[in-house]
Amino acid sequence: MNEAAITLDGWYVLHDFRTMDWSSWKQISAEERQAATDEFLHFLEDMQKVDDAKEGAHAFYTVVGQKADFMLMTLRPTMDELHTIENRFNKLAIAEYTIPAYSYVSVVELSNYLAGESNEDPYQNPHVRARLYPELPRTPYVCFYPMDKRRQGEDNWYMLSMDDRKAMMRSHGMIGRQYAGKVKQIISGSIGFDDFEWGVTLFADDVLQFKKLVYEMRFDEVSARYGEFGSFFVGTYLDAEKRKAFFEI
Amino acid sequence: MNEAAITLDGWYVLHDFRTMDWSSWKQISAEERQAATDEFLHFLEDMQKVDDAKEGAHAFYTVVGQKADFMLMTLRPTMDELHTIENRFNKLAIAEYTIPAYSYVSVVELSNYLAGESNEDPYQNPHVRARLYPELPRTPYVCFYPMDKRRQGEDNWYMLSMDDRKAMMRSHGMIGRQYAGKVKQIISGSIGFDDFEWGVTLFADDVLQFKKLVYEMRFDEVSARYGEFGSFFVGTYLDAEKRKAFFEI
Amino acid sequence: MNEAAITLDGWYVLHDFRTMDWSSWKQISAEERQAATDEFLHFLEDMQKVDDAKEGAHAFYTVVGQKADFMLMTLRPTMDELHTIENRFNKLAIAEYTIPAYSYVSVVELSNYLAGESNEDPYQNPHVRARLYPELPRTPYVCFYPMDKRRQGEDNWYMLSMDDRKAMMRSHGMIGRQYAGKVKQIISGSIGFDDFEWGVTLFADDVLQFKKLVYEMRFDEVSARYGEFGSFFVGTYLDAEKRKAFFEI
Amino acid sequence: MNEAAITLDGWYVLHDFRTMDWSSWKQISAEERQAATDEFLHFLEDMQKVDDAKEGAHAFYTVVGQKADFMLMTLRPTMDELHTIENRFNKLAIAEYTIPAYSYVSVVELSNYLAGESNEDPYQNPHVRARLYPELPRTPYVCFYPMDKRRQGEDNWYMLSMDDRKAMMRSHGMIGRQYAGKVKQIISGSIGFDDFEWGVTLFADDVLQFKKLVYEMRFDEVSARYGEFGSFFVGTYLDAEKRKAFFEI
Amino acid sequence: MNEAAITLDGWYVLHDFRTMDWSSWKQISAEERQAATDEFLHFLEDMQKVDDAKEGAHAFYTVVGQKADFMLMTLRPTMDELHTIENRFNKLAIAEYTIPAYSYVSVVELSNYLAGESNEDPYQNPHVRARLYPELPRTPYVCFYPMDKRRQGEDNWYMLSMDDRKAMMRSHGMIGRQYAGKVKQIISGSIGFDDFEWGVTLFADDVLQFKKLVYEMRFDEVSARYGEFGSFFVGTYLDAEKRKAFFEI
Repeated sequence: MNEAAITLDGWYVLHDFRTMDWSSWKQISAEERQAATDEFLHFLEDMQKVDDAKEGAHAFYTVVGQKADFMLMTLRPTMDELHTIENRFNKLAIAEYTIPAYSYVSVVELSNYLAGESNEDPYQNPHVRARLYPELPRTPYVCFYPMDKRRQGEDNWYMLSMDDRKAMMRSHGMIGRQYAGKVKQIISGSIGFDDFEWGVTLFADDVLQFKKLVYEMRFDEVSARYGEFGSFFVGTYLDAEKRKAFFEI
Repeated sequence: MNEAAITLDGWYVLHDFRTMDWSSWKQISAEERQAATDEFLHFLEDMQKVDDAKEGAHAFYTVVGQKADFMLMTLRPTMDELHTIENRFNKLAIAEYTIPAYSYVSVVELSNYLAGESNEDPYQNPHVRARLYPELPRTPYVCFYPMDKRRQGEDNWYMLSMDDRKAMMRSHGMIGRQYAGKVKQIISGSIGFDDFEWGVTLFADDVLQFKKLVYEMRFDEVSARYGEFGSFFVGTYLDAEKRKAFFEI
Repeated sequence: MNEAAITLDGWYVLHDFRTMDWSSWKQISAEERQAATDEFLHFLEDMQKVDDAKEGAHAFYTVVGQKADFMLMTLRPTMDELHTIENRFNKLAIAEYTIPAYSYVSVVELSNYLAGESNEDPYQNPHVRARLYPELPRTPYVCFYPMDKRRQGEDNWYMLSMDDRKAMMRSHGMIGRQYAGKVKQIISGSIGFDDFEWGVTLFADDVLQFKKLVYEMRFDEVSARYGEFGSFFVGTYLDAEKRKAFFEI
Repeated sequence: MNEAAITLDGWYVLHDFRTMDWSSWKQISAEERQAATDEFLHFLEDMQKVDDAKEGAHAFYTVVGQKADFMLMTLRPTMDELHTIENRFNKLAIAEYTIPAYSYVSVVELSNYLAGESNEDPYQNPHVRARLYPELPRTPYVCFYPMDKRRQGEDNWYMLSMDDRKAMMRSHGMIGRQYAGKVKQIISGSIGFDDFEWGVTLFADDVLQFKKLVYEMRFDEVSARYGEFGSFFVGTYLDAEKRKAFFEI
Repeated sequence: MNEAAITLDGWYVLHDFRTMDWSSWKQISAEERQAATDEFLHFLEDMQKVDDAKEGAHAFYTVVGQKADFMLMTLRPTMDELHTIENRFNKLAIAEYTIPAYSYVSVVELSNYLAGESNEDPYQNPHVRARLYPELPRTPYVCFYPMDKRRQGEDNWYMLSMDDRKAMMRSHGMIGRQYAGKVKQIISGSIGFDDFEWGVTLFADDVLQFKKLVYEMRFDEVSARYGEFGSFFVGTYLDAEKRKAFFEI
């Protein structure tokens, strides 16, 4: 039997993509829309308090194109909390004017492919903790996509030796490092939780960096031979004023 | 012709995933919601009585993410009873506020790959019976996914010899055994009943064990070369109080 | 050019799967439901008369799980009659409370792979006629699935020689024969008519025989290397009393 | 670079498949239904006038099974006319009671694989013209399916030499010729216009000839190794009286 | 690690495909329709002003067949502007009578495969600028499709050397050049932004040139072995008068 990489697991993550049902949103009165928007913004403020207390994290971004109108990404110590938040959202007035578009269930993950050897408990290492229980940035752009490692004929990641995988992941990681400071990357594992094996969430000040990073990685053997990708979502950050405008008719 | 493994077959299983239509659920009066919730909880109590009498089993879990809002898993001695339960659910008031999301029809199955040789009737063996007619635990978490054995070019499970399959299944089973006490696993066969060949239902106190188990198995040749997986559903158990809260607006 | 097997073709077949729209069905009055149910049962009686006259055949089964609520399978000498029946069904009151779920258009078919050599007109042979223009049994269970013969890299059925195909089909047929008396099998061809190449309809007193038969066949080279399967539907027979109960609220 | 076959291109083609929304169709008054039916039959008469003037062609067939209720196939000298007809149909009263089911955009095409060598302008050849600007027959049955030439590993049509493709297409054409007088075949090219590369429309007096032709061709190397097929639609012709009956409740 | 081509990136692009909900569009009064049409045409005039100022570009085309009724293609210097336009469209009255059909998010891209060597800043080269920040023509026809470079077994574009890719892209480009003056081609990159890797938008006076170009390219190794294509959309340009007629009932 082949050896699996050991993973470190942090906060649970729910990516919740929703499409506005603009037709029914327009049909209610301006007062009702205002009340529903206020209630939702209040909900987001409640989310922010958890971020501030470092007991979780969230991000709210609009999505460009028809795949969804916005994404609410939430990180929490337990999966139950994710479900509670999802249930609370569904009971907001605004939820009646949204249509579920896509969701993804995962847990922030660090694999030991790149780990140094040490006797310390990695969960006590502050650098590790910062990555397992991350603060989410408020960069102008976000990108999300789920992915698998391929198991197809000669290109079967899970039949490779640990050493081969480690070598390839190291080369893969080198590309990521070149984007340090330009792209913040959160990898979350979803084997057993959702339809792909990993979710990738990227944050950047320059949206073009998503394309550059993913394109460059595609020539790396890990992606070229072993990467299978789901849908890509790209979104923009709205400040408080733009948020209101987004929902205003 | 290649030799098929003999299977032992127990209770028939229906996994029934439903999404709440929260918008229409909100539109009815609090009294109507209360009545519909009470009727549904009463239906679940009726299910529980069958569990108590050991004449069947059921589990009710919420589902995290947009794939569904809840899963009702039911086990019965005949497929007709599954259909009757499905029909009874459809006639409940709450059903009008749900949307079918996914379902799976199968029968609890033990394959003889791991069987010892013996002259006894396995259906009389209490250990076998406990697995064919299982009690379903009330662990905090559940995971369900359907799967196939691959038939693709060089990776064709059904063209392997019985000995090769037996050896691989033994190694595969060893991983499962390491999770004894952490993950309870129910395998149900669905060839001829539904679109995949097997359904896998996992129960655990720690949701992370689903990910660890499925990830570790993925490096095993049975999964790495021969496993094809459908959608993964992960859910949380709600006690009586939380159930009521879940449906309350 | 490779040689195609000659086929004998009998009655045309329409499998029509429908899902009840239970919400709207509940919204009408008990009288309207009664009238719509009576009209539908009368329609089924009309179908039965054609069966009795041996001018066609039909079967009405419920379907387990969310894929559909019931299946109406109809066999007739011409495709026009199938269309007429479909159109007549659509105009029944009950049709307004159903949602199309799946359908399959085919013609009962016997291939000459297993044929003996003879100078007689096979269409006059009573054994052949009984298979081309079959009476449909009223067994408690039915199973339907469409299938293709694979054309993929090294596994290309249509590039095999007639002799190779004949040998494999003979071995395949041997499995079927072991289920004689347990499973009645109707093969219908759909090349040029629908998305798969064949439809398979199985009838049995014991639903488990579907699983055993399809599982055993899967290890046979014809299925293992060359079978591609669509969705599987499994259903239960309802006697007159149960039919009424099924539609009652 | 490999050599592409030169094609001759005739009339543009729109296959427009629609499903009746029988529930809403039943809800309007008999007068409204009559008016909508009359308007639609008048629209078809207008189409017929263009056929009579040999300035285009059309065919109206019902479709068997749930894929659609009817198909309107229209041929015109420009794509703009196809769009105008589609837009005109959408504005008919009956369109409100139909649901788009499938459509296909293509242009009647003759490839030069089978062409003799000559210096004449093929577009002036009356035999060629009859095929590029065809009259559509009113046979009792129609069949439509889209298809691709495969580009998969060793089976890559577009990597074959012109000579190999020519030889295979000749053998393929021989099968078609055996069906002369039984099946009229219209090939239309859709590369750059729709999701498959070609559309195939077959007309026959005996619906079984569709199955025989497509089945026999499947053993020919062009189909066996290089054919990829989309959905198959089979339909029946309705004379004036049956058309009225079809829409009558 | 393999070398990625350097790309030059221009304006961001949103292709927004919409289907008219003709039934609800007919249900409102002629005045309401007129007002909604006028508002939409005014919106398009606003778009045109940005084109005139060369601060972006847009194209409005109808789509033939059921995939969509029209396409609005918009190019802007930032992705935020695309989102703003999408949001503004959603708030137009006409949007309530449209259904999202498909969208594509990308950025105009030039790859350096065909680049000469030079020390100048390509972003200052007027020829390059004209391609990165293109004016969109008002040709009678448009074609759009998304595509990937294949990563499948032996046919893995991303595992080829830079030299091999460069040689193939040069040959590929030669075909495109033969269509200079007949087809204007805009390539936009979408890795990290949408589900395929590139979008291709073609403009022509003769719609048949789309078919000829794409067909000829398909025999080129780049497409034959390495091209994977999504849906093809073909559309027609409407002048001011035809636009009004299109929306009129």
